Amino acid sequence: MSPATLPLGQYLFRRIRQLGTEHILGVPGDFQLTLLDEIYNTPGLKWVGCCNELNGAYAADGYTRIKGSPAVLVTTYAVGELSAMNGVAGAYAEHAGMIHIVGMPARTLQKSRAMLHHTFEPNMDPAVYIQMAGPIRKTHAYLMDDETMAEEIDRVIVACVRSRLPVYIYVPVDVVSVPLDASRLETPLDTAIRNADSEIEDRIVHSVLSEIEKASDPVILADVLAIRHGGRDLTRKLAEITQFPSYTTPLSKGIIDENAPYFNGVYNGKVSFPGVAERVEGSDLVLNLGPLLSDSNTGGFSRTIKDDNLIHLGHDFCQVKGEKFDGVHFLPVLQRLVGELESQPRKYKLPRPQEKPRLEPPVLNNASSGEIKQSYVWQRLGRFYKENDIILTESGTAQFGTPDATFPPNAKYVTQIFWSSIGYTVGSCLGVLVAAKELNHSGRVVLIVGEGSLQMTVQEIGTYIRYGFKPIIFVINNKGYSIERAIHGPQQEYNDVSLLWDYQKMLEFFGAREENGIKAKSRAVKTVEELEAVLGDDDFASGDSIQLCEIHMDKFDYPWRLAKQVELIGERMKKAASS
Amino acid sequence: MSPATLPLGQYLFRRIRQLGTEHILGVPGDFQLTLLDEIYNTPGLKWVGCCNELNGAYAADGYTRIKGSPAVLVTTYAVGELSAMNGVAGAYAEHAGMIHIVGMPARTLQKSRAMLHHTFEPNMDPAVYIQMAGPIRKTHAYLMDDETMAEEIDRVIVACVRSRLPVYIYVPVDVVSVPLDASRLETPLDTAIRNADSEIEDRIVHSVLSEIEKASDPVILADVLAIRHGGRDLTRKLAEITQFPSYTTPLSKGIIDENAPYFNGVYNGKVSFPGVAERVEGSDLVLNLGPLLSDSNTGGFSRTIKDDNLIHLGHDFCQVKGEKFDGVHFLPVLQRLVGELESQPRKYKLPRPQEKPRLEPPVLNNASSGEIKQSYVWQRLGRFYKENDIILTESGTAQFGTPDATFPPNAKYVTQIFWSSIGYTVGSCLGVLVAAKELNHSGRVVLIVGEGSLQMTVQEIGTYIRYGFKPIIFVINNKGYSIERAIHGPQQEYNDVSLLWDYQKMLEFFGAREENGIKAKSRAVKTVEELEAVLGDDDFASGDSIQLCEIHMDKFDYPWRLAKQVELIGERMKKAASS
Repeated sequence: MSPATLPLGQYLFRRIRQLGTEHILGVPGDFQLTLLDEIYNTPGLKWVGCCNELNGAYAADGYTRIKGSPAVLVTTYAVGELSAMNGVAGAYAEHAGMIHIVGMPARTLQKSRAMLHHTFEPNMDPAVYIQMAGPIRKTHAYLMDDETMAEEIDRVIVACVRSRLPVYIYVPVDVVSVPLDASRLETPLDTAIRNADSEIEDRIVHSVLSEIEKASDPVILADVLAIRHGGRDLTRKLAEITQFPSYTTPLSKGIIDENAPYFNGVYNGKVSFPGVAERVEGSDLVLNLGPLLSDSNTGGFSRTIKDDNLIHLGHDFCQVKGEKFDGVHFLPVLQRLVGELESQPRKYKLPRPQEKPRLEPPVLNNASSGEIKQSYVWQRLGRFYKENDIILTESGTAQFGTPDATFPPNAKYVTQIFWSSIGYTVGSCLGVLVAAKELNHSGRVVLIVGEGSLQMTVQEIGTYIRYGFKPIIFVINNKGYSIERAIHGPQQEYNDVSLLWDYQKMLEFFGAREENGIKAKSRAVKTVEELEAVLGDDDFASGDSIQLCEIHMDKFDYPWRLAKQVELIGERMKKAASS
Repeated sequence: MSPATLPLGQYLFRRIRQLGTEHILGVPGDFQLTLLDEIYNTPGLKWVGCCNELNGAYAADGYTRIKGSPAVLVTTYAVGELSAMNGVAGAYAEHAGMIHIVGMPARTLQKSRAMLHHTFEPNMDPAVYIQMAGPIRKTHAYLMDDETMAEEIDRVIVACVRSRLPVYIYVPVDVVSVPLDASRLETPLDTAIRNADSEIEDRIVHSVLSEIEKASDPVILADVLAIRHGGRDLTRKLAEITQFPSYTTPLSKGIIDENAPYFNGVYNGKVSFPGVAERVEGSDLVLNLGPLLSDSNTGGFSRTIKDDNLIHLGHDFCQVKGEKFDGVHFLPVLQRLVGELESQPRKYKLPRPQEKPRLEPPVLNNASSGEIKQSYVWQRLGRFYKENDIILTESGTAQFGTPDATFPPNAKYVTQIFWSSIGYTVGSCLGVLVAAKELNHSGRVVLIVGEGSLQMTVQEIGTYIRYGFKPIIFVINNKGYSIERAIHGPQQEYNDVSLLWDYQKMLEFFGAREENGIKAKSRAVKTVEELEAVLGDDDFASGDSIQLCEIHMDKFDYPWRLAKQVELIGERMKKAASS
């Protein structure tokens, strides 16, 4: 008797379902329709159609950030996968990977090099698109050989979960029905992160503990790759146990409870609040978890922590002062470290640098009336956020302003200051909403997006409405690409966008109308008083319906952090040019 | 004395201006802002800001199709260029190339491999994106060396104009101000198409003429690459002079005057009107100009013209029956051929197959009331089009239905049935509008797009309005991706799109409102009577303001050509599977 089989398409989706995934994101195309049929044959799995593939990739990235396990994006050959490319690259850069499934022509047609639609010249190898995506993925499976398909699917899924980077699965349409051994599914995939050598982990843990005991002024600097690689809760625990003064970065904001007595602010090199850089850089032991050292996450490369004072716990290597451990993943190390401190609290003599007074953020602008300024709005929004909120800030002023805010406990934060693709959050927010739903997340989803960015990806607002999601949306209407104005050409026409759009009609246009049974409200504010009225309105703040607040701001007003970083980069460039 | 110089940025834009280009399309980004400044220093050049880069690439493709010379698209490093990729690939596939200028980080920063925003990992070579775009361009210039920059710019511009394929120019931001020799600009670029060996051209021309004289039933089959490679007017002339029965394809529709006595219809293999395939395939001499033999341009590969009866005049080779001339471009050949026939009309004894009665398209559905059917709407819209209209039809039902229509004289047609990226026309239409403006084109621009496609790229409607353009827009609202339904899973949820959008509010949302001084009108029709009323309305038809007509149609109603092609492909696949 031959063993029970199931079609490849179903095998693939059941494997994905085993990760806890409940929704598949994507756009249909004629080379993957029969594959999509298998979603409906996989109990617990649903389809979420996106308006376009770039937005779909952004959504997948957002999903991964919140869910903690990889999103799944399905696109079609060529047109679909190429449209998604920028979104996938961003997920690669920021370790918010996804399983990107691409439907391809049948193998016979591929081999015959037929001039099908979505090819681009006669006699072309259809694998050319596979090569194009090479640099933006961890690995891929090109399912051409019946014998290895099941293994290949398993291999790339595991690689995705472990690496947090995008992977691709290329599925020729005829392959969907290839029978695979169903019994494989009885063994769940082993996606756990572990290092080959547990003795090295021991050594690192003991080395770290010994350094801690020797230090007089240790601090925790918790960066974004600690979140992306599954270390968020452990990092919070470490801060809670040690009570060491703790800092985040612009990208990792929210990983440390900002109301805790040990939280001291956002460290971003010279682009930090007063006292922050001095304390971090003056510490004799910086426990740096999951660093991502890009320009805008280091104050334009103005971070200056001496290697002698640094413990680097990364996903690809760990380093305790001078000693580097290549290929060691921080997660098992952090697990042991926290376990050790938890189980034997009295064994280690932790220093108590926290007796220094907590660094309080300065109040930048205590306005109670008049024009809405960058110096005012971000801290004010900080007081609007509630426990468990998920906050998305778009590239540009929102992203550079938000580090001014103090987040409530357990806020989760989504921003893309490394890859910095404008329009990202509008797509990402869809995935965040989907993930929050899967998690039965109790908090609100708050999206803050500039109108220039919104114009890039606006259609996905319609997808929130289509699926009944209820985010609170702030549109910063400052008449153009303010981040570009801050960098160069503030008065130049190329930094303008259309001023004719009526954002007050947006939700209505996309379907949030009474006739559809969808409650929604849109408002526009130009003054502090008006904004205060909206933020104080229970109906607006409840998150019970989709809401929009358009905040009009001056087009030449920039967050101080943006202006400061531009200044630092300018100095750097001048120095480079003269050297 | 050193020769007069001008900064590279200006040199580049002045070279572009010399092509007759008046508008630069794109999206600003911090690595090309200083480059964009040079647009304003180049007399006669203007900036057109697009909402996003994919739409910008589509717009560039549309511009090139109408203007006949390459559009220029400016994007930024990584995020911008990757977002544009699908649009550029489509322009590659359909030979509607563009000069894609990408702003990059300064050379020093590139060489230091700084972890700037828009990179994706530490110590990364920023040229990785240049490699990714390799397959979708003819050539590129990566301006790293001062000594060769001017030559490199000239080389790729010439390559673009000649090949009609996309080219890339990568401009590090510090390179914008590099002084180049201004005197180079006094010599315009030589972009003329010529073959290395003019004797071979003579041989082909004489061979073609001799075959014509021998033939009893010659026909002209004018395909799309004849248009793309600058042969539209010559092809029309050839048909006019010879009066041979002439045919177009789905992609080349409009190249032959459809009211001329010699026009016989759209040849698309078995997916043609009755009599068309029989006549083309029965001819003893098919003069095939600019063939593009993709699935949907050959009736799902059901074109069957015997090589013995075929003269192939292509951009990459010419073939007269058995004799193939590799690398010979048809354009100079066609120039000579037409010149010969024009100058010596009595020398050649042209056969007169045109004495057969002209093939008239059947009337598919003569409805005067009731539901609007696919069988009715396309021929009816054909009667709405006017001389000199530019008609864009989106991938999907519009594209498969429109061959049913008879076009008025000198209609120009934009569709993308080879690359087939849905959402294309909405972006493309922006470029068409810009090109039409540059040409002082007197006709209207008519865009026909399904609502699923519209949702992909909808924001660019806002750009039409921003720049004061006045297209007539038909939105085919048939509740989902009908082209996918026709292929597979008609009832499946993945083929649905949001039904909540209110297209009647779209123009208003994007800014076409009285308060902005912009006249616009939107209407929705569900019956033939209602559609007739709109089409008969002078205000609607005038093209004096932006207008929208939403046509509600049944979601399971497909154009016969689409259903037929799906059937043929299905048969083919079955045959392939069983063989």
